[in-house]
Amino acid sequence: MDYQKILDEIDSELSTTQFNGKVASYIPELANVPADQFGMHICCMQGGNYAIGAHSTPFSIQSISKVFSLTLALLYEGKATWKRVDVEPSGDPFNSLVQLEHENGIPRNPLINAGALVVSDILVSHLENPKKDYLAFIRKISGNPKIDFNLKVAASEKKWGFRNSALINLMKSFGNIKNDVEEVLDFYFHKCSIEMSCQTLAQTFLLYANHGCLLLNNERILTKTQAKRINAIMQTCGFYDEAGEFSFRVGLPGKSGVGGGIAAIHPGAYSVVVWSPKLNPKGNSSMGMAALELLTTKSGLSIF
Amino acid sequence: MDYQKILDEIDSELSTTQFNGKVASYIPELANVPADQFGMHICCMQGGNYAIGAHSTPFSIQSISKVFSLTLALLYEGKATWKRVDVEPSGDPFNSLVQLEHENGIPRNPLINAGALVVSDILVSHLENPKKDYLAFIRKISGNPKIDFNLKVAASEKKWGFRNSALINLMKSFGNIKNDVEEVLDFYFHKCSIEMSCQTLAQTFLLYANHGCLLLNNERILTKTQAKRINAIMQTCGFYDEAGEFSFRVGLPGKSGVGGGIAAIHPGAYSVVVWSPKLNPKGNSSMGMAALELLTTKSGLSIF
Amino acid sequence: MDYQKILDEIDSELSTTQFNGKVASYIPELANVPADQFGMHICCMQGGNYAIGAHSTPFSIQSISKVFSLTLALLYEGKATWKRVDVEPSGDPFNSLVQLEHENGIPRNPLINAGALVVSDILVSHLENPKKDYLAFIRKISGNPKIDFNLKVAASEKKWGFRNSALINLMKSFGNIKNDVEEVLDFYFHKCSIEMSCQTLAQTFLLYANHGCLLLNNERILTKTQAKRINAIMQTCGFYDEAGEFSFRVGLPGKSGVGGGIAAIHPGAYSVVVWSPKLNPKGNSSMGMAALELLTTKSGLSIF
Amino acid sequence: MDYQKILDEIDSELSTTQFNGKVASYIPELANVPADQFGMHICCMQGGNYAIGAHSTPFSIQSISKVFSLTLALLYEGKATWKRVDVEPSGDPFNSLVQLEHENGIPRNPLINAGALVVSDILVSHLENPKKDYLAFIRKISGNPKIDFNLKVAASEKKWGFRNSALINLMKSFGNIKNDVEEVLDFYFHKCSIEMSCQTLAQTFLLYANHGCLLLNNERILTKTQAKRINAIMQTCGFYDEAGEFSFRVGLPGKSGVGGGIAAIHPGAYSVVVWSPKLNPKGNSSMGMAALELLTTKSGLSIF
Repeated sequence: MDYQKILDEIDSELSTTQFNGKVASYIPELANVPADQFGMHICCMQGGNYAIGAHSTPFSIQSISKVFSLTLALLYEGKATWKRVDVEPSGDPFNSLVQLEHENGIPRNPLINAGALVVSDILVSHLENPKKDYLAFIRKISGNPKIDFNLKVAASEKKWGFRNSALINLMKSFGNIKNDVEEVLDFYFHKCSIEMSCQTLAQTFLLYANHGCLLLNNERILTKTQAKRINAIMQTCGFYDEAGEFSFRVGLPGKSGVGGGIAAIHPGAYSVVVWSPKLNPKGNSSMGMAALELLTTKSGLSIF
Repeated sequence: MDYQKILDEIDSELSTTQFNGKVASYIPELANVPADQFGMHICCMQGGNYAIGAHSTPFSIQSISKVFSLTLALLYEGKATWKRVDVEPSGDPFNSLVQLEHENGIPRNPLINAGALVVSDILVSHLENPKKDYLAFIRKISGNPKIDFNLKVAASEKKWGFRNSALINLMKSFGNIKNDVEEVLDFYFHKCSIEMSCQTLAQTFLLYANHGCLLLNNERILTKTQAKRINAIMQTCGFYDEAGEFSFRVGLPGKSGVGGGIAAIHPGAYSVVVWSPKLNPKGNSSMGMAALELLTTKSGLSIF
Repeated sequence: MDYQKILDEIDSELSTTQFNGKVASYIPELANVPADQFGMHICCMQGGNYAIGAHSTPFSIQSISKVFSLTLALLYEGKATWKRVDVEPSGDPFNSLVQLEHENGIPRNPLINAGALVVSDILVSHLENPKKDYLAFIRKISGNPKIDFNLKVAASEKKWGFRNSALINLMKSFGNIKNDVEEVLDFYFHKCSIEMSCQTLAQTFLLYANHGCLLLNNERILTKTQAKRINAIMQTCGFYDEAGEFSFRVGLPGKSGVGGGIAAIHPGAYSVVVWSPKLNPKGNSSMGMAALELLTTKSGLSIF
Repeated sequence: MDYQKILDEIDSELSTTQFNGKVASYIPELANVPADQFGMHICCMQGGNYAIGAHSTPFSIQSISKVFSLTLALLYEGKATWKRVDVEPSGDPFNSLVQLEHENGIPRNPLINAGALVVSDILVSHLENPKKDYLAFIRKISGNPKIDFNLKVAASEKKWGFRNSALINLMKSFGNIKNDVEEVLDFYFHKCSIEMSCQTLAQTFLLYANHGCLLLNNERILTKTQAKRINAIMQTCGFYDEAGEFSFRVGLPGKSGVGGGIAAIHPGAYSVVVWSPKLNPKGNSSMGMAALELLTTKSGLSIF
């Protein structure tokens, strides 16, 4: 498969299309990102790297970090994780409290905010120095020692994080948060603030395409079963209220963030990350979804 | 009407009845209150005071304080209050978040927790020294300069107040809380911790029986319309999920608290406060409701 | 109290006011009623009758019939009624299914559609010829042998009654409807179609002002306790989503219908019925509520 | 791949396992099916057929018929179908009315009851003789002219179908049902009553594995895009509240029915149908899920 040719075609086709959508505006650091940027990067398991546009520009990974947190939580808690967070699509917006109130503070899945807060609580229980240790883990699985938090973004998220504060306090009232809520929120907001480029993110997501092993040195991070579990959750829960639409248009497991990034994988074949800040009404990158749809159409490699 | 005779009959009838129910247990300070206490006090507008049992023992007034907060908020904001909190029964438990999420952070009424938090926020905006000024107001309308917060109860409420923290953060995310959430919560928990006896509470509730004037010196605190509004809200919203049952059995506007107190009024006639710590499953004092039912039955003075 | 003088003042004040609102339009028979009609009738327990405007014009009583159905059901089932329908305000619109699904098919109260359907089912179980026997009962308590169904209205309600059909089938799936759904719906729609004037309705509602006895011959229909129960339910649940607002503005137990009628009582004093077809957004007669508010303000006889 | 060997291993492994669960009991025709039956059938696109157990015993396909209805609706309405039913997971039980009430009568997806009722309504609008024409379509895509309704099952479903009646009447009240509700329900219940064996169902599902063409004669039924859409919907919505769990354990798009059948496909490779009447608490066949999990584990052919 000539991925570079496919990427160049995508670049050419999308460059003449006007994409609607709005850059995330709930914190100034995201609102000020120039809207018209676009980058895309593919890492093949056979070794090739293919890219177009601003693929090496770092951006705020936001909710994509939920996948890494889940990965690390599974290493510490294994199956016990599923006693505190479920694995089913939610059918409600990413920050809804209704489901939590009706289901005793157990979030529907680890890729919505409530679920990611429980996962953060699990990590705070296990990590000696949560922020430092988390960063070390991300640097290891990405092979990139320069990855870091954006402290301004983390501070801004915290300042405007009333909805997340409501979610975590509600779960605490049900006993499903074990640590201090402020400490967990601080850790959570830092994780969301991490900046990575399409290139670095794609290299990191090879872990999930490669069934739980780092491609570089073949070190096993997750068991095959754990990797399958994460991929299945990304498939059914990775795109907010648009999991069904994404499944159809793109047909790959993945996760999006309000920074405009989308990371996806074709298990056994490749990882791909696209970035463009304008979001559609459901909170996923408009141009990013179009680019991924073209990729699976042109490559014929959708899972469906 | 010979109220003392009626009270004595009530005392005699109830002394042989075993009341089920549990003392509130979410904080140790309430859990440790001896369960079998009972007191009742009537203040007539014509001047008489009638009492039985532990009517002069102070107890934690808890949600009964919501009536006083609403009173003070109306003095500062008047009708503008109703832009931030509605006046209808909620149909959901007192601490539900579902309704708030569906109705843009506007609570159903000022006598459920969410509504009382908005009212607290209004007071924090207006009072120079909220806790001190609030206490001064309560002392004034009660005519009792010794009324005070119970700081241990306030601290305990704060320590275990995750659900209230969830409520206020959710409303803050909708823009319906103007001040710092921690400051408002601190003020709210202090208000709930106030201790008053049946006697003092009954004297204070004369204000509502007397259409907004202090009986003592005839000073007008609320307009007639404002007093009518508060009484109507107590009638439809004062008893958590049991407003309908209370309307039927007792038929007086009132407000209960998880400390086991119930304050009620017969407009133009009397105020009455009963206290007994064991709560029924809906959170209202079991013995208290029985006592009030006997009172309106024996006096023939239900509003229905 | 010179009620006629008060009514004349109300007439004069309201005649210069423009009332907003829309005539109910879900069936043509209601949509075609001339919007600007107005009538009001008071029956005093001491015997006087006072009226203004179109007080003797028959109109579709609609949901006001729910009070009569409940009355008859209590005669047959007594307290057992409350096992199948609760007595608390709903907090949801009159035709909501959400609460039913969450609470196992038990409606919140007998004055919302779901509750009235359960009450209808109870009557179908007990009455030999439901429609005929029900009419006989209404004729008896009103003292008016000419009261009848409007068969066109009943047929139209049935034709457009999908929401009620959804409600009754949902409750049937929970086992809370014992008879054939079509038979119960047919009975229910006939009851809603009954036509009465302000005058006749006010005479009928004297039953509730008179604590359960017919005023005419002093025949006891309901026990005092049953009458109190009905009055308490009207107070907390009689005005859809506007029970709190009505409690404040009018301060009397009552029930409204989408035909534009409102019946209310002052226990021990009088019954009053007002009719004007334009409805406010909550489904209650705009001019009717204004007229009742003036009545209790001018007479000083609100229960608060 | 030696599918027969894999099936024989599955048969051997599962024969010693005790599966919990209960046969569907809401109608006697399903309740009376012997619980311990088991059959499985694989159709490979290269032509092979592999089977174990009662693979040729007909059973009630129930909700699996929703996939065929959707297929036929897409042929008539194409993309316009998505104006009346969405494509996202619901997060609520298969027969919930809550979501419909909050979202104006538009069901979340075509594989829950509400969505399948809308799809049935679409077919009633287009088919001259709905039941006959539908059967003809199923016979054609299955290549089996003997497939038929079970009229006893259809009659029983109708007799106990109050919940479906509630759903369709609620959607009718929102204008999302165009035909007579009784006619649509009758058609819907007949479709659910169709009986097919694992063998026949697997042959029929080859259509979806083969991207929309009949394998037999290469006749195109669905466009590639339509087939991809149906497969994506099966992946995210095919298993009631257990879509996430099924995605993980089995990792294939599919659809289950309360008759105990599960049909699934590996696009481009094979179709597989398993049948065993005992259902887990979420309503999916316990033994069926275990068998499919073993299949994808042993074949290494999960999509993840």
